[in-house]
Amino acid sequence: MISQSSSEASICLAVPQADAEQAERALKRAFRAWMSRGEVEEIAVRGGVGLIAAVGLGMAQTPGVSARLFAALARRKINVLAIAQGSSELNISLAVEQAQVAEAVRAVHHEFGLHLMDAGEDGGRRMDLILLGFGKVGQAVARLIEARKDEIARRVGLEPRVVAVGDRSGFLLEPRGLSGEALEEAARQKNAGQPLVRQEGGKLGSFGVLVRAALSYRLSRPVVVELSDAEGSEEVFEQALSRGADVVTANKKPLAGPRAGFEALWRAMQASGRLLKAEATVGAGLPVVDTLDMLLATGDRLTGAQGCFSGTLGFVTARLEEGAKLSEAVSEAKERGYTEPDPAEDLAGMDVARKALILGRLSGIAPDEGCVSLTGLVPQEWIGRPWPALLAHLQGRDEALAAEVREAKERGLRWRFVATVEPGKIVVGPTLVPADSALGGLKGTDNMIVFRSDRYEARPLVISGPGAGIEVTAMAVLGDILRVAAQRS
Amino acid sequence: MISQSSSEASICLAVPQADAEQAERALKRAFRAWMSRGEVEEIAVRGGVGLIAAVGLGMAQTPGVSARLFAALARRKINVLAIAQGSSELNISLAVEQAQVAEAVRAVHHEFGLHLMDAGEDGGRRMDLILLGFGKVGQAVARLIEARKDEIARRVGLEPRVVAVGDRSGFLLEPRGLSGEALEEAARQKNAGQPLVRQEGGKLGSFGVLVRAALSYRLSRPVVVELSDAEGSEEVFEQALSRGADVVTANKKPLAGPRAGFEALWRAMQASGRLLKAEATVGAGLPVVDTLDMLLATGDRLTGAQGCFSGTLGFVTARLEEGAKLSEAVSEAKERGYTEPDPAEDLAGMDVARKALILGRLSGIAPDEGCVSLTGLVPQEWIGRPWPALLAHLQGRDEALAAEVREAKERGLRWRFVATVEPGKIVVGPTLVPADSALGGLKGTDNMIVFRSDRYEARPLVISGPGAGIEVTAMAVLGDILRVAAQRS
Repeated sequence: MISQSSSEASICLAVPQADAEQAERALKRAFRAWMSRGEVEEIAVRGGVGLIAAVGLGMAQTPGVSARLFAALARRKINVLAIAQGSSELNISLAVEQAQVAEAVRAVHHEFGLHLMDAGEDGGRRMDLILLGFGKVGQAVARLIEARKDEIARRVGLEPRVVAVGDRSGFLLEPRGLSGEALEEAARQKNAGQPLVRQEGGKLGSFGVLVRAALSYRLSRPVVVELSDAEGSEEVFEQALSRGADVVTANKKPLAGPRAGFEALWRAMQASGRLLKAEATVGAGLPVVDTLDMLLATGDRLTGAQGCFSGTLGFVTARLEEGAKLSEAVSEAKERGYTEPDPAEDLAGMDVARKALILGRLSGIAPDEGCVSLTGLVPQEWIGRPWPALLAHLQGRDEALAAEVREAKERGLRWRFVATVEPGKIVVGPTLVPADSALGGLKGTDNMIVFRSDRYEARPLVISGPGAGIEVTAMAVLGDILRVAAQRS
Repeated sequence: MISQSSSEASICLAVPQADAEQAERALKRAFRAWMSRGEVEEIAVRGGVGLIAAVGLGMAQTPGVSARLFAALARRKINVLAIAQGSSELNISLAVEQAQVAEAVRAVHHEFGLHLMDAGEDGGRRMDLILLGFGKVGQAVARLIEARKDEIARRVGLEPRVVAVGDRSGFLLEPRGLSGEALEEAARQKNAGQPLVRQEGGKLGSFGVLVRAALSYRLSRPVVVELSDAEGSEEVFEQALSRGADVVTANKKPLAGPRAGFEALWRAMQASGRLLKAEATVGAGLPVVDTLDMLLATGDRLTGAQGCFSGTLGFVTARLEEGAKLSEAVSEAKERGYTEPDPAEDLAGMDVARKALILGRLSGIAPDEGCVSLTGLVPQEWIGRPWPALLAHLQGRDEALAAEVREAKERGLRWRFVATVEPGKIVVGPTLVPADSALGGLKGTDNMIVFRSDRYEARPLVISGPGAGIEVTAMAVLGDILRVAAQRS
C-alpha cells in the first residue's frame, strides 16, 4: 500500500513488519542527501499497524460504499491511519492499529452483512418486515402495508416490505420480499383451510425458527412484527433484538408473562439499541402506550392508571345497566360474536389483567405479576367448560348481580369491570365508580384509560373509544412500524 | 497524489492535466520491458479528474471524520475515483470527476459547516435549541430541558442544549450553549422586569434576527422552539427550515394565519426535509396533534373533529349549568385568574377558532380560514373595551342565556362552546349536544377532542383532560423535541 495525499508533504508505504527495519535503512540510505539538505525531514516507521482491504466489483460506480465503510469504523471508534483507493475503485485499503484490526474487520463485515447470506440485492431504502401470525390481524397488517407502501416511503424515506409470514404451522420466507399478490394468495389459501406450511414454498418451523432463518439473510432494517396470540414469543423477541431487528407486538402475552422474562426482554432491548413497541397491546388503536411513553419521556411520573379494557365486558355492563340479566347479556354478546368462542375467557378477565400488567410494567409502577389481584365475573376454572354449564352458572348469579347494579345506581354509582394500576398494586374486577366520573360515563363496548400523574393529578388525562377491532389494531401496529422507521431512516 | 491499495494490482498517480501526456510517455518508456513481458498490463490515463483535499489538525485521532466526509459525498451521489490518506492523518485526498468537483466541495463544506462561523467546538451528539419566547412557558421549557437533559441523552442519544433565548426585546445567544445557571439568572432578571436586551450580553433584534444570527453558527441539529404568542412567526419558521433547522411551536398564530402563509410554510417544510411539530397548539399536553398525525399516517381519513378547546369557557359552561348567571360566571373566572386580563379575548372565541383551523389544516379537511364561522359569547369588537362595560353587556344577556341552558337541559341536551371541524366547514360557538354524548359528559375546565374517521366512524376516538397549563404545555413541547430528536439521532 502506498499513499501520498495531494499536499505532497509525505508519502506513506506499508510493508510487512519483518521488512520494516530493512526498508527504513534502504530509504534512509536513498534519501541521505535530501535529508542532510533538510528536503526530506524524516523517515519514520510506525509498527503495529494492520491493513484492511475492502474488495468488490460492486464498489465501482457505487457512491456510498466508502461512506458506509468509514461510518462502520467510526461507530466502533476505530481510527484510520492511512487510506488508499486506486482508480480501479475495486479496492479500498485502510491502515489501522494492529490491535483494532479484528474489531475493524468485524465492524465492516457487519455493516455490509458479510456474516449473513445474500438476500439477492442491496439494502437500499427499505424496511424488511417479518410477520408472526397470519390470521385476521396479520392479513390486515399485510394488506395495509401493501396499500400504504408508497405513502410510507414518502413519509419516512423507507419502503416497507414483507419478507416473511408465519403461522402456527410454518412460514413463507422470501428475503427479496413477498409481493402483494403473493401475500393475497397466501391469505386466500390460509382462509380456505390451507396453513402456510402446506402452501407452495411453505416451510415447517416455529416463530423462533422463522426469525432465525429470516435474520440469517442480509435484510434491510428488519422488524419482527408479532400479530399472533402465541405463548413464549418473548424468547423470539430476545433473539430478534440481539440479531439487530426491532420488534413491534400486538400480542400481549410476551409482555405479561413472568417478571423475569419481561425484564430479560427489556435488558435485551437496551443492550441491542433496538426498539420494542407495543401500542396495539392496550386499547388497540387508541394512543395509550405512546401517551404513557410520552408522559414518562418528558419527565412525568404516573401515579395511577384506571380503565376499562374489554369491549365484551363493556357490552355486558351496558346491558346490565339497562336491566338485562347477566346470563342474557352474555348470551347476547356471544350471539353477536363479541366474545371468544368460549365466553368464560372474556368473563374471567385474564385479558384485562394482562393489559393492566403491561401498563404497570411500562410505567414501572407495578411490574410484578404478584401485584395483580383479579376477580373475574367467573373464576379462571370456568374456562374450557361447556357453554350450557357456564350459562347455568351465570343464571345462578343473575339475581345477585342485578341487585348490585341497581343498588349502585341508586347510590349515584355505576358498576364497571375496571383495572386499577397503582404503585405496587393492580386490582382487576367489578368496581363501583361515581356516575359522574370518566369511567362512570363510559358507554357500550368502548374502552377507556384514565391516566393520573404528577402533571395530571387534579384532573386526569382520559382517552376512550373502541379498543378492539381488526382495522384499528392493524393501524396501531402500522403506527409502531412508522415510529421505528422514523428512527431508522 | 499517489495511491496503491494493498492488492498491489495497480498504482495510481495524479498529475496535472498538462503533464499527463508526458507522464504517460515516461511511464511507458520506463515500464516497456515489464509491459512486453506482461508483468505490467497497461499504463492508462484518465482525464477530467479533480482532486479534493480535506485538511485539518483536528482530523488526526478523530474517528468519524472520514465517515462524515464520504457520507456527504454519497448523499450527492458523487463517486470517489481514488483516495489517499497518509499516516499523518492531517490530509485526505480524493479524486472525483472534474465536473463534480464544485458540488463535492460544496457538499463537504456543508457537512462540516465550513460555510458557517465556528461555534467553538465540534458538533458531537447534541441538539441545539433556539427558544423564541421567554415568558412562563419559555422558562418552564428551559427548566424542564435542563432537568431532563441526561435522561434525554440516554433515551435519544442526543443531549439537548439551549443556545439562544429571545423575547420581544431582544435575545441572548451563546453558540456553545447557555448553562442552566445562565438561563435561571436570565429568567430571574426578566421576571424582575429586566427584558433580555437589557441583560448582560443581550442583543437587540426580532425573532427573525435571532434565528438568522443563531443559524449563522455551526450548530448541531438546530431546533427553533416557538413559545411566544407573537404574530408573524411563520416567516421566521420558513427561514429556520430553509437553513436546516427543525421547528417546534406552541404558538398557534403561525399556523392559523392566512392560508397562503400556512401553505408556504408547509412547502418550506417539505422542501427542506425538516420537521414542523405543533402538539402544544391544541389541548396543550393532550396527545391531539400526534394522534391526528398517526391516524393520517396509517391511512385513516378524518371525517370530522369536534371539541371543547377552552378551559375558561368550560368553567363558564359548568357554572351556567349549575345555575349561575353568565355575568357571575365570567366575573368568577376573571377573579380566579382563568381568563386573559381582558375576558373578552376568551369570550370572543378566537383562540378556539385558531385551534379548530389548525386541526382543519393539519387534517387537510378544512384548510381555508374562510371555512370558519365563529359565534363568540361576545363579538370580537368587545375586545379592548373596559371591564365594567363588558360586565354590563354580559348582565344584559344573563336572562336569555340562563333560559337557553335550562331549556336545553330539559330536552336532554347540554349547552357547550364547541368547535366542529368538517370537510370544508368549521363552526365555532355555543352548541347544544346530547347529554349522553362525550361532549355532553365534559366537566369543568377540561378540554376534549372527539375524532371521527373512516376507522372511528360508528364510535369516535375521544381524548380529554386539562388543555392548558404551563407544565403540560412545556411537556407537549418537550415531547415534540423528542420526536424530532428521534429522527435526527
